[in-house]
Amino acid sequence: MCELLGMSANVPTDICFSFTGLMQRGGNTGPHRDGWGITFYEGKGFRTFKDPNPSCQSKIAELVQQYPIKSCAVVSHIRQANRGEVKLENTHPFTRELWGRYWTFAHNGQLSHYENLPTGRYIPVGETDSELAFCWLLNQLEQQFIALPADLTALYQFIAQCCDKLRSLGVFNMLLSDGESVFTYCSNNLHWITRRAPFGEASLIDEDVVIDFQQETTPNDVVTVIATQPLTNNEQWHKMRPGEYCVFHLGELKATNHGFCAPQLPPNAQPKSA
Amino acid sequence: MCELLGMSANVPTDICFSFTGLMQRGGNTGPHRDGWGITFYEGKGFRTFKDPNPSCQSKIAELVQQYPIKSCAVVSHIRQANRGEVKLENTHPFTRELWGRYWTFAHNGQLSHYENLPTGRYIPVGETDSELAFCWLLNQLEQQFIALPADLTALYQFIAQCCDKLRSLGVFNMLLSDGESVFTYCSNNLHWITRRAPFGEASLIDEDVVIDFQQETTPNDVVTVIATQPLTNNEQWHKMRPGEYCVFHLGELKATNHGFCAPQLPPNAQPKSA
Repeated sequence: MCELLGMSANVPTDICFSFTGLMQRGGNTGPHRDGWGITFYEGKGFRTFKDPNPSCQSKIAELVQQYPIKSCAVVSHIRQANRGEVKLENTHPFTRELWGRYWTFAHNGQLSHYENLPTGRYIPVGETDSELAFCWLLNQLEQQFIALPADLTALYQFIAQCCDKLRSLGVFNMLLSDGESVFTYCSNNLHWITRRAPFGEASLIDEDVVIDFQQETTPNDVVTVIATQPLTNNEQWHKMRPGEYCVFHLGELKATNHGFCAPQLPPNAQPKSA
Repeated sequence: MCELLGMSANVPTDICFSFTGLMQRGGNTGPHRDGWGITFYEGKGFRTFKDPNPSCQSKIAELVQQYPIKSCAVVSHIRQANRGEVKLENTHPFTRELWGRYWTFAHNGQLSHYENLPTGRYIPVGETDSELAFCWLLNQLEQQFIALPADLTALYQFIAQCCDKLRSLGVFNMLLSDGESVFTYCSNNLHWITRRAPFGEASLIDEDVVIDFQQETTPNDVVTVIATQPLTNNEQWHKMRPGEYCVFHLGELKATNHGFCAPQLPPNAQPKSA
């Protein structure tokens, strides 16, 4: 199995604090030694850092922890290999273009009988069930919608239906982003927390690090962090239910199975830390 | 305009030496302040580091210079923006999947009347002439061949024909790789050098750095470096002619306009430095 980490924020925010917690699970406090990756969106562009080496020993992971790259949408993953060898092409997240946007995907879980899912023009490069599921999902989206639909509810519900199908093949916890929204789907383990004013202190479970978000934020900042397991031990994380999806946009919960939430869109504020 | 840097090698080789030279042109000895990027293949996978900030000031460029990432196929670029703003989505190299492989592209030059080139399923995300030309090229390849053709001569000649067409729209120097071969096309400025035993010393033009390749290599190593302008001042670089293409595979020149060269494939040797 693997661990997922995602972020959605209304101002460009670094994820150094949360990433520091996650990276410890890549060989130190967790068994996920088989690679890690993180994708930061900046506008319509993205940058991905990845490594098939354990995150707790990775020079590149060290850079990502120390050098605050600020983003409004982040997808990250540490891997404990099941399907597919420990190789760079099997390291999440995976990114492909659809409708003139880059879509980024990371998966926690394991699927069976997935090999014959049709992927159309999206051909997997590596051998993981995850990349194949991603290619299938993009192909489904392309078959269903000619372009990004104006009705985002329809889009989200369709993605959720595709995820339901994948969940019927095994364990399928997922993060998916087009740089605007962060779509999350829960099969068994996925948690999220939205931080907003008044900000307090948070302390990492996996390392002896405490952050006072009040020092790092402005009153308008809204930042949601999504993770397989809670990363802090003094905050209340929402545990998602099996089959539940959540879509976050600019830090706010925008849609779930239960409906479409009108997002609060506070004015831009200063960059911060998550 | 921009500068290109590519490498093809028969053993995983770091490009720290050449990259150090190139990075100085990103704002110090050259005017290319508008971003830089580098893609390293490892097997079928790749990793890309990129930044819309000047390379000579970039923390990430510093990491790439200091941390030897070893690869047999590298594509790199520093940018002086003409078409498209200074933004991450406009920063080269660009990577897309075709036939189950990742293809990576970087362009030096500027095109006119390119806007209506049909790109099929490959939709540009940014606004550069370069990314659009890449999308068009991939679409042409997909239309022409159902899968990677067994006859690579036909593939190379077809890519060259596409490049000829792009050159008719302006200046088009290009690096293209699928992780196996590095395809180069010259419109006006592109140089290459193949280093093999007996290795000697090389000294960078752009910084006071000398390397003794003999210390870094084994007798079987073959490494080709491709660059817009020669990076060293004491070696003989081949200057490519307008309309000329060269394909390098495992360090050796494999094909050009003038025919198909049977590549020498020496046995694997130790990793080295380029």
